[in-house]
Amino acid sequence: MNKIRIGSIGLGRLGLQHAENIAFRMRNAELTALCDVDTAKLDQAADRLGVKRRFTAFEELISCKEVDAVVLVSPSALHTKQIAQALDAGKHVFSEKPLGVTVGECKAAEKAVEAHPDLVFMLGFMRRFDESYQYAHTKVRAGEIGKPVLFRSYSQDPEKYIAGSIAFAPHSGGQFLDMAVHDIDLARWFTGSEPETVYAIGGCYAHPEFAAYKDGDNVSCLMRFRNNTMVFLFAGRTAPHGYNVETEIIGTKGILRIASVPQKNLVEVLDEQGVRKECSVNFLERFDTAYVNEVQEFVNCIIDGRKPEVSVYDGTRVSEIAYTCKAAFEQETLLHF
Amino acid sequence: MNKIRIGSIGLGRLGLQHAENIAFRMRNAELTALCDVDTAKLDQAADRLGVKRRFTAFEELISCKEVDAVVLVSPSALHTKQIAQALDAGKHVFSEKPLGVTVGECKAAEKAVEAHPDLVFMLGFMRRFDESYQYAHTKVRAGEIGKPVLFRSYSQDPEKYIAGSIAFAPHSGGQFLDMAVHDIDLARWFTGSEPETVYAIGGCYAHPEFAAYKDGDNVSCLMRFRNNTMVFLFAGRTAPHGYNVETEIIGTKGILRIASVPQKNLVEVLDEQGVRKECSVNFLERFDTAYVNEVQEFVNCIIDGRKPEVSVYDGTRVSEIAYTCKAAFEQETLLHF
Amino acid sequence: MNKIRIGSIGLGRLGLQHAENIAFRMRNAELTALCDVDTAKLDQAADRLGVKRRFTAFEELISCKEVDAVVLVSPSALHTKQIAQALDAGKHVFSEKPLGVTVGECKAAEKAVEAHPDLVFMLGFMRRFDESYQYAHTKVRAGEIGKPVLFRSYSQDPEKYIAGSIAFAPHSGGQFLDMAVHDIDLARWFTGSEPETVYAIGGCYAHPEFAAYKDGDNVSCLMRFRNNTMVFLFAGRTAPHGYNVETEIIGTKGILRIASVPQKNLVEVLDEQGVRKECSVNFLERFDTAYVNEVQEFVNCIIDGRKPEVSVYDGTRVSEIAYTCKAAFEQETLLHF
Amino acid sequence: MNKIRIGSIGLGRLGLQHAENIAFRMRNAELTALCDVDTAKLDQAADRLGVKRRFTAFEELISCKEVDAVVLVSPSALHTKQIAQALDAGKHVFSEKPLGVTVGECKAAEKAVEAHPDLVFMLGFMRRFDESYQYAHTKVRAGEIGKPVLFRSYSQDPEKYIAGSIAFAPHSGGQFLDMAVHDIDLARWFTGSEPETVYAIGGCYAHPEFAAYKDGDNVSCLMRFRNNTMVFLFAGRTAPHGYNVETEIIGTKGILRIASVPQKNLVEVLDEQGVRKECSVNFLERFDTAYVNEVQEFVNCIIDGRKPEVSVYDGTRVSEIAYTCKAAFEQETLLHF
Repeated sequence: MNKIRIGSIGLGRLGLQHAENIAFRMRNAELTALCDVDTAKLDQAADRLGVKRRFTAFEELISCKEVDAVVLVSPSALHTKQIAQALDAGKHVFSEKPLGVTVGECKAAEKAVEAHPDLVFMLGFMRRFDESYQYAHTKVRAGEIGKPVLFRSYSQDPEKYIAGSIAFAPHSGGQFLDMAVHDIDLARWFTGSEPETVYAIGGCYAHPEFAAYKDGDNVSCLMRFRNNTMVFLFAGRTAPHGYNVETEIIGTKGILRIASVPQKNLVEVLDEQGVRKECSVNFLERFDTAYVNEVQEFVNCIIDGRKPEVSVYDGTRVSEIAYTCKAAFEQETLLHF
Repeated sequence: MNKIRIGSIGLGRLGLQHAENIAFRMRNAELTALCDVDTAKLDQAADRLGVKRRFTAFEELISCKEVDAVVLVSPSALHTKQIAQALDAGKHVFSEKPLGVTVGECKAAEKAVEAHPDLVFMLGFMRRFDESYQYAHTKVRAGEIGKPVLFRSYSQDPEKYIAGSIAFAPHSGGQFLDMAVHDIDLARWFTGSEPETVYAIGGCYAHPEFAAYKDGDNVSCLMRFRNNTMVFLFAGRTAPHGYNVETEIIGTKGILRIASVPQKNLVEVLDEQGVRKECSVNFLERFDTAYVNEVQEFVNCIIDGRKPEVSVYDGTRVSEIAYTCKAAFEQETLLHF
Repeated sequence: MNKIRIGSIGLGRLGLQHAENIAFRMRNAELTALCDVDTAKLDQAADRLGVKRRFTAFEELISCKEVDAVVLVSPSALHTKQIAQALDAGKHVFSEKPLGVTVGECKAAEKAVEAHPDLVFMLGFMRRFDESYQYAHTKVRAGEIGKPVLFRSYSQDPEKYIAGSIAFAPHSGGQFLDMAVHDIDLARWFTGSEPETVYAIGGCYAHPEFAAYKDGDNVSCLMRFRNNTMVFLFAGRTAPHGYNVETEIIGTKGILRIASVPQKNLVEVLDEQGVRKECSVNFLERFDTAYVNEVQEFVNCIIDGRKPEVSVYDGTRVSEIAYTCKAAFEQETLLHF
Repeated sequence: MNKIRIGSIGLGRLGLQHAENIAFRMRNAELTALCDVDTAKLDQAADRLGVKRRFTAFEELISCKEVDAVVLVSPSALHTKQIAQALDAGKHVFSEKPLGVTVGECKAAEKAVEAHPDLVFMLGFMRRFDESYQYAHTKVRAGEIGKPVLFRSYSQDPEKYIAGSIAFAPHSGGQFLDMAVHDIDLARWFTGSEPETVYAIGGCYAHPEFAAYKDGDNVSCLMRFRNNTMVFLFAGRTAPHGYNVETEIIGTKGILRIASVPQKNLVEVLDEQGVRKECSVNFLERFDTAYVNEVQEFVNCIIDGRKPEVSVYDGTRVSEIAYTCKAAFEQETLLHF
C-alpha cells in the first residue's frame, strides 16, 4: 500500500506537533512537505523532521505533485480560503478548527467540499478522538446510561497563559468561539441532538481586558436541546490548577464523567499539601494521543475511500451555535435557535 | 448550667432522627417532650428515648412549662402557623425547611419572629452545618479561592426512592422548592450575593408522573447573581448511584469541590467492577452529623443569648428565589428578580 | 433505664476526649467522676463538663459509690494495676491500650478479669469501632472478598509531631508496641488467625534519637499467619502528609482498601498544587467517632449483661505479638511464634 | 539520517506489539524483517505490517545484511543464546526480559555483550519507560521525597488469565522470576541500592496447581537494602479487578504512589455499583506507550552511539535477586545476599 503523502501548513505550536505526529507516529502516511511564512522556523522544523519540500507560499505547496493531502494549521482567517484552494488542487484536506471565522465562510466551505465529493475533508475536533471520550461515547450510544438528562462540559485554560490569551483576544472571537466550540461539538455528538434555546452569562472576574472585545475571562451558558437534554457549558481562562477539560453526562440509568481530575499522569503525591495529583498544563499534553488519532483517521479515510464522521456541516453548525451563544452573552438574554 | 428542655414535633423519618439526636448526641439539651398525631409511633419513640411528656396536640406541647424550645419537623404546611404559636407561647423555635409553602406565609413568619426579639428562631438549612461545607466556606470567606466565578450545586435523590417522590409530588412544591432550596441557600451563603436573573429548564426524563404537577424529574437553572457570580443548579430524582449532593465553587485563585464523590465511607472496593466507592443512600446518612450540629447551634444560641446566622429572612428569601426558579421553569423563559 | 455512671481517669489529650464524649455523646451513660493528679487540669475539665466528683487519687475514685464503671486513660505503666483495683472495687473497666507494658502484666490482668466474671472488661482497640473498618470487616466476614491473601496495614504519625514522639520514646516501648499494636489487632480481627513467623526491619531514616531505645523512626514487618495469610505492617513517625492509618485486604475474590487517602473531609482543593485532598492531622480527628462508639459499646455491654468482642486475651495476644516483632527487629532476624 | 533497520523475532502477543510499534510508532527506525517458526502467523503479520523479509530460522535473519538490529521476543530459554549469536553477527540487540533463565546464562550473556563493546545491548524493563514511573523517578532523584524509607511494589495479573498462567507455570520460573523481576528492577532503580536480606512467603490461595512447581498463586517478600531502605514486593495471579502494577515510595519528606488505581482511562462511571473506574486488562494496555518508548530509546542509543541506562548487568543482578527470593520462598526462611 502506498503511503499518503501529506503537506502540513503552519508551524505554530500545534502545527509543529501535527507535523511531528505525521512524521513519526502515523501509519500509512508520510510528511512530504511543510509550509510556513517564517523561513527560519520552516527550515528548523523541516531539518529535524527530514522533510525536503519546503514552501513559504501555500499556493506552491498545493501545486506539488508529491502531496496527496494537506493538514491546515494556519491562522483561522485563512481556513476556508485554503480549504477551497486545496480541494480545487485535488488534495484531501484536514483543517484545524474553526472551520471559518464567520458562518458565511463556513457555508462557502460547505460548497467547496460539496464540489469535490471524491476528496476527503475532515475538521479537527480532536476530543472525539481521545480514548476516554471515545470510551464514554461508546457507552452512551450503547444505552448504558439510559436517556441523557444533563450534559455538562468545561474548557478551562490555565491562568498562567493569560498574557497570551489577552494578546489573542482581538482575534479569538471570544470564549464561545475559541474554546466552547469543542464542548458544543461534544454536546451534539453525545446527545445526537441540536440546541433550541440558550442563555449565556459571564464576565471579567480577573482580567478586565476581555471586556473591550465584548468577552469575559469566564463565561457559561445553559441550553435546552431538541430532545430536551439540558446542556451546561463553562469556559474560562483563569484555571488555577492547569488545563481542565471535563465532561459529565448524566443519564437516567448511569452517569459518566470524563477527566473530572485533569491528572498529568498516574503519579499521586503525598506531602504537606495533602494527597494530590498534578495536572495537565495544556491541550498538547492532554490531547497528545487524540491529535495523532484524528489525523490517522483522516489518513485511514483516504485509504479506505470513506468519509470521516466529522463533516463540514458539523463545522458550520458548531460555529452557528457558538455565535448564538456569543450573541446571548452580549445581549444578556435568552435566545432561540 | 441548666439544660435546654426541648419538645420535638413530628416523628417521621427526619423527626425521629432529630428526637434521637436531641436525646443522645447534644450538649446542654434534653428531650423532654414529643408530639405526633400517631399515638403508636409516639409511644414507641418516647419509650425508646425515655421521654415522659407525650402529646398528640401541638397546642398542648407548647403549653408545657417543662419545655423551653421546640423543634418543628411537622408537615410543611403547618410550619408558619406553628412557628407563630410556639413563639407566642414563649418557646424558642427551630423549624425544619421550608419556612412556609408560600412567600406570604414566610412574610407572616417574619412578623412572628420580629414580635419576639428575645426568642431564638432558627431554620434548618443543615448543609451549612456539615463539616465539609463549613471547611469550604471558611476557605472561601478567607479569600483562598479569590473572587467567585461559578457556583455549581447538585441535589440528586436516588432513583430507588422514586415511588416515594412521586407519591409526594402533589405536596412537594416541585424540585426547586423541595430540593434546590438547599442549593439556593448555599449559593447565597457562599457568594454573599443575591440572584438577578434565572433561566430554568428540565423535564420528565424517566417518570412522566411529575408533569401533572408542572414539575420534572430532573431540572436545572442558570442564574446571574448581583456580584456577577454565575450560579448553576441541578436537581434530580433519578440518581443511579445514591444520594448525591455536590457543590463546586470556582474562584479566580482556586476551586473547591465538596463531595464530588458521595462516598459512603472510607472503604474502596476493587473487584470485577473496577475500583469503586459505594455511595450514601440518603440525606440522613450523608448529613448525619450536620443534623446534630444545627440543633446544637440552636441550643448554643439560646444559652449564649445570641441569634443564629440563619435568619427567618433567609427562609423567605430562599423561598422567593425557588418560586421564581419554578416560574421560569414553568414558563420556559428568562426571569429577572 | 438507669444510666451507667462513669468515672474517667487521666486527662491527657485522649483522656479529655473520652471524658467529653461520655459527657455529651453517649447514650445511657453519664460522666460522674474525674481523676487526674493535676488539680488545675482536673478542675478545668470538671467545670467545663459539669462533673462534681473530682479525685486526684485513683483509689478514692474507685471507692466512690456513685461510679459504676471506669474508663482508664492513665499512663500505660499503671494500666494493669488499676484494672485489678477497679475490678476488685466492683467497677466495670474500660482500659485504653496497651493492656500492660509487659506480657507478665497482661497475664496478671487476665487473672484479674477472670476473677470478676460478672464485670465487663474492655480494651480500647478503637479502630474496630470505626465505621469504615466495620463496613470492611462485615464484607470480609461475609466472604465478599474470598479467602484472605495479603493483609497490609500502615500506621503513620505526622512528622510535625516528631518532637513529642522523641520525648516519649523512652516510655513508648517502640514502634511495634506503641503504634503497630492496632494493626496487629486488625490483622487478627480480619483474618481470624494468628501469626506463625515474623521478619522485621527498619531504622532511623530521619531521626537518630530513636536508636538509643533500639527503635527506629520507621519500621516494618512481614508475618505469615497460621491460615497462611501474608501480613505486612508498616509503622512510622515521619509522615509528610498527616496522620495516615490505612489498611488493604487482598482476597481471592476482591480487595478492600480502608482510608488509602487519609482525607480530612469531603473537600477537594484545585489550585496550583494540583487537585488535592487535605489530610487528617491526628488520631483524635481520624477516629473521632470510633472513640465514641467503643465506649458506647462498653456501656451497652454493661446494660445488656454481655461481654465485648475485644477481650483481655486479645490484649495479651497483641502484646505478645508486638514484643516478638520488636525482638525480630532488634535481632534483625526471622522469629517463629 | 538513515533509519535503523530492525528485525523482530517472535510473534506472540508481545512480539506482535513490538513489531507493530517498530513499524508504525517509532522515529528513525523501520521494521525490515520478521521471524517466527509459525509461517501462517509470520505471513499474516508481515503482510499487515508491509515487511518483505520473512524468516523461520533465527540464524537466517541475523545473516541478513538489511538488518542493523534485532528485537528478541522469543521464548525465554532462547534469549542468551540468541543474544550472543546476534551480537556475533554484528547486530545491535534489544532483548525482552528475562535476560536468561539461569544466572549462569546471564553471566554468559554478560561475556557476549562485553565482547562487542561497539554494539548496543538493551534489556526490556519497560516500566522504566512508562511516563508515570519516569516522572516519579525524576522527583525521587531530585530529592523531593527525601531519603527513601519504604519501597512497595505490586504486580498482579487478573484472575481471568489464570488458565494461561497455570499452563505456563512449568516454564515461568515462578512468580518471583516471572513477575517480580520488574519490581526488583524498579526497587534498584529507585533506591540506587541492592538487597542484603530477604524473607519470602506466599502460597496457593485459589489455585493449588502452582504448588507442583514450588510456586504460589500469590507471593510476597520483605527485603532490607544496603542503604537500609525497606522493600516490600507482592506478586499475584488472582487480581479480581484487572492488571494491577502499583508502586509506592515512602520517603522522609514525601511519598509518591504510581498507579494505585489501575485506571483504564479517564472515565468515571457512576451507577448502582457506586462511583468507579474501570481497570486496565493487561500489560499491553497498561504499558502501551512504555513499550514504544523503550525500543525508541534502543534506537536512539544506536544512533547516538551511547549505551542504554539498563545494562546487561542489571539483567543478571535482577535474576540473581529473583532466584534468592525464590529460594527464600521455597525454604520458608530468611536469606542474605
